[in-house]
Amino acid sequence: MLLEAIYHRPKSNYAYAYDDKTLHIRVRTKRDDMHQVYLLHCDKYNLHETSFLRVEMQKFASDSLFDYYQAVVQPECRRCAYLFEFISGEQRVIMNEIGFVEKESDDSSVLFATGLFEFPFLNAIDVHKPPQWVKDAIFYQIFPERFGNGDTSNDPEHIDCWENGAPNRDNFFGGDLQGVIDNLDYLVELGINAIYFTPIFEAKTNHKYDTVDYMKVDPHFGDNELARTLVAKCHEKGIKVMLDAVFNHSGYYFGPFQDVVNNGEASKYKDWFHIRDYPVTCDPKPNYDTFAFTGQMPKLNTAHPEVKAYLLEVARYWIEEIGADGWRLDVANEVDHHFWREFRQVVKKANPDAYILGEIWHNSLAWLEGDQFDAVMNYPATNSILEFFCKDAIDAEQFMSRLDAIFLAYPLQVNEVAFNLLDSHDTARLLTICQGNKKRMKLAAAFQLTYRGTPCIYYGDEFGMDGENDPDCRKPMLWNQERQDGELFQFYKNMIRIRKENRAFRDGSFTFLQAGRGEKHVVYERADDNNRFIVVMNNCIDTIDVQLPGIEGNWEVITGNGTVINVNGNITVQLNDLEFVIMKSV
Amino acid sequence: MLLEAIYHRPKSNYAYAYDDKTLHIRVRTKRDDMHQVYLLHCDKYNLHETSFLRVEMQKFASDSLFDYYQAVVQPECRRCAYLFEFISGEQRVIMNEIGFVEKESDDSSVLFATGLFEFPFLNAIDVHKPPQWVKDAIFYQIFPERFGNGDTSNDPEHIDCWENGAPNRDNFFGGDLQGVIDNLDYLVELGINAIYFTPIFEAKTNHKYDTVDYMKVDPHFGDNELARTLVAKCHEKGIKVMLDAVFNHSGYYFGPFQDVVNNGEASKYKDWFHIRDYPVTCDPKPNYDTFAFTGQMPKLNTAHPEVKAYLLEVARYWIEEIGADGWRLDVANEVDHHFWREFRQVVKKANPDAYILGEIWHNSLAWLEGDQFDAVMNYPATNSILEFFCKDAIDAEQFMSRLDAIFLAYPLQVNEVAFNLLDSHDTARLLTICQGNKKRMKLAAAFQLTYRGTPCIYYGDEFGMDGENDPDCRKPMLWNQERQDGELFQFYKNMIRIRKENRAFRDGSFTFLQAGRGEKHVVYERADDNNRFIVVMNNCIDTIDVQLPGIEGNWEVITGNGTVINVNGNITVQLNDLEFVIMKSV
Repeated sequence: MLLEAIYHRPKSNYAYAYDDKTLHIRVRTKRDDMHQVYLLHCDKYNLHETSFLRVEMQKFASDSLFDYYQAVVQPECRRCAYLFEFISGEQRVIMNEIGFVEKESDDSSVLFATGLFEFPFLNAIDVHKPPQWVKDAIFYQIFPERFGNGDTSNDPEHIDCWENGAPNRDNFFGGDLQGVIDNLDYLVELGINAIYFTPIFEAKTNHKYDTVDYMKVDPHFGDNELARTLVAKCHEKGIKVMLDAVFNHSGYYFGPFQDVVNNGEASKYKDWFHIRDYPVTCDPKPNYDTFAFTGQMPKLNTAHPEVKAYLLEVARYWIEEIGADGWRLDVANEVDHHFWREFRQVVKKANPDAYILGEIWHNSLAWLEGDQFDAVMNYPATNSILEFFCKDAIDAEQFMSRLDAIFLAYPLQVNEVAFNLLDSHDTARLLTICQGNKKRMKLAAAFQLTYRGTPCIYYGDEFGMDGENDPDCRKPMLWNQERQDGELFQFYKNMIRIRKENRAFRDGSFTFLQAGRGEKHVVYERADDNNRFIVVMNNCIDTIDVQLPGIEGNWEVITGNGTVINVNGNITVQLNDLEFVIMKSV
Repeated sequence: MLLEAIYHRPKSNYAYAYDDKTLHIRVRTKRDDMHQVYLLHCDKYNLHETSFLRVEMQKFASDSLFDYYQAVVQPECRRCAYLFEFISGEQRVIMNEIGFVEKESDDSSVLFATGLFEFPFLNAIDVHKPPQWVKDAIFYQIFPERFGNGDTSNDPEHIDCWENGAPNRDNFFGGDLQGVIDNLDYLVELGINAIYFTPIFEAKTNHKYDTVDYMKVDPHFGDNELARTLVAKCHEKGIKVMLDAVFNHSGYYFGPFQDVVNNGEASKYKDWFHIRDYPVTCDPKPNYDTFAFTGQMPKLNTAHPEVKAYLLEVARYWIEEIGADGWRLDVANEVDHHFWREFRQVVKKANPDAYILGEIWHNSLAWLEGDQFDAVMNYPATNSILEFFCKDAIDAEQFMSRLDAIFLAYPLQVNEVAFNLLDSHDTARLLTICQGNKKRMKLAAAFQLTYRGTPCIYYGDEFGMDGENDPDCRKPMLWNQERQDGELFQFYKNMIRIRKENRAFRDGSFTFLQAGRGEKHVVYERADDNNRFIVVMNNCIDTIDVQLPGIEGNWEVITGNGTVINVNGNITVQLNDLEFVIMKSV
């Protein structure tokens, strides 16, 4: 038994409340080291050795080094003191907060007396409760300048040709909110029920991440009334709307910053930013804090009461008065935690069902404990999916390792609403990442649409739009039917339908059944109380036969190209290169 | 190299801001596994392999299984992306957020490109900044009913004889606030500069943990004006005052609860508690949530806006209007986190220098990240000190392991103001825990008074008062000079003086130099920029010679019974049974 591998941390992703009654308690061990792992728990105010309940923990995830076990408990008085018992062959070891003791040793009584791990009290207000609709959402990301030009009267002075659009950093194509309204039926046909808009507020650039006025729709996109109309029309069609807020920094032309530029130290806004000396200058480099090293994006002082009041009013206004259903928060990890805690209070007061999504690329638990965000953009999953399916850069075990590590890193309710994207306005397009290989693209998308968490499709991917990194990935939407890939559209539409029709894909368990070292195929199960699905994916360029030992009963292929052969109850799935099947237990 | 033993967690006790400029980044490895460990860090907006700074990490703590390494960095733009490099013999391994790669492998470039650990931005408002005076405090715990009876006119109806006081759960002795005022000069003589009062608010019991009125001093103790006077007189003498708040539950006779008892579901206070059905009853057991299973202590619904408003006004009033310098929070771990966050805002607004101390007995990081408490009562250290010095139940290595594990568990600034007690009104007295062995008691106290964190002495320990667990540990203060242990008093007074005169003991580094497996002596160093001290403690009942290899220069014994022998620069300390010395580098 490798004691050094065993890990638990109270009040963290290893021990959290899933709902008002239920605790999830997890522990890590060396991979394949244990025969059984038990959770021993009791009410600490009724503490003696025989008062402990002994629950066998289930292995729920693995990575290349570790296994992860979990127990689900509902303590009667919402208090839980606990310790762990590990069994490996003849060896039995107990761990509490102080350390390890062999179970048969004379010392084991001390483990029951002092140093118990504790989840001291499950207070309902502390439970992280993301909005439930997010589990059912299929998001579609729209970059408003490039989706549809529904009103040429508000176009920028110079716009380039939509049809042959070649975006550069500075050009415009005339997309606007009316262009979205005009195409809502298209989104309904695809099966979309939520839109993520990159910023729509007044700004100088085409991407609008350099906000000039947070309270106003960019005049090239329309006005606030049109935004209200857009949201109302989306709601009529069952589509939620998420806006993009840039609260880490403003644009250089944000009024208060311009006031500091013009009035220097005399400006009443001087403390809204982090200015090191006066006058404000960018020559040779900014003498104020910025996003990255970009003088065009001065960092806001979100600890300043006036800045807070202003931004929190922005947060409230677009939710309460325009009707938006959520906020995606740009560069969320560089803003202070105090601000985000107040932000959550304001947003959830305006709409308890609003979705708060942080843009964070790394481990984000510090923002996901119920007091700040509901979820984060799941880039670690993005990278793992791309590296396995699209780039063929990792094997099935590494793929599983990485996804299970993310699963372990957060409470279950966070993973259930994680924002799973494969590409965006900040990356190359999915088809391009797949080097034009549509079969790889489909595998990745099929995985995304059958995985835990909320999928988001980048506008136009469904028609086979390609594009290198920004700015090439921001081409105008491909509305020309002759150039659209109708087969790919049908694929997306079908996969979205399968996800929407089967709750197990949105809210069921997820388990890797096969993901071996050196292998290029994966098998996983999704199940809820009513249905059970098995997905088999062949990520290699050869035909393979995948045997499914231990899988019994009758199975129906609900989509995909493959053959299921059942010989005396032994099931084998034959798959051509880069194909997959989804089987349903019948 | 044991990869399974290596552990890091971003934004935690393993990576935190110590002040507005400085990050502490830590990593765990298997004990004695590494030759060198390096932190490689950079600004992620300036990301290429050569942009990484490479800092050797220092081993700063060890326990029986692990070594802990730390690097201190001050990133120019307050952003830090990082990874770790481990060197063991010929093996070089790099770890980032995704996993491990051998340094010479072709894959290592991916480590620099994706999956870096991040401390995304050091926002000053998020830095945990406990009040600095706490580092310099020597606390003295007073149980007001038992310290001094300064006003017989407010005595309870029946009081027992002070001199031969035999406390039981229900009797009274007449102690009051005037009794404290009358004895402040005594505390000054001892060297005390902070008092921790157990509750002084109106309640039925002698211990007052069953609050009847949070806004009013118990009539047997005095009144609010007298409390104000007491605080003012303490401040005149340089003594801080910390009060004890019971916000987890009220007493049964708390007005709002009585209203629910009397009016049932019609009471306007019914949601102030967690009542399961009506009428309220304790027969056969309470039909409402309680502290433990105690019907006399109904749990407060701290998520209810009115309860919050009431308790936050209590929090403000005693700090802002009476002048108290801090709150000790009873059963702090069972109250919701949202409440404590608001509590901190209110208290720090009333007095930014107020000390917020939680009563939590287990790992408390979830309350110690800058948004809730400044520190917790350090029971894990208490237990370790008692088990080593007083009960001889663990060896020197276990002692070091446990203390270093606590040190690792929190940011440094938390450990600097940890509340280090050896006994209290909730435990047997220190002398009794030592089975009357005064030499063991002195070793424990000497350690407490030279250790990192804020020491607290339980009233009367300094005169050799003894007592078994509650209620025996709550005897009236031993004011009869003939029965006082004057030698012990001088010992405490001397140790307090040494701590106060030498900043290294309050604010310096702490390092175990010797704490071996099976050993009964420890050697540790405390040092700041100006001075260096070595403490050698003999916890066995035989005389020992402790050699101090690697310790050079001249040393003066500033207290303790022992002989320092320097032969050609090789220093040996001779100590009789259960003796210690403190040496100062001169």
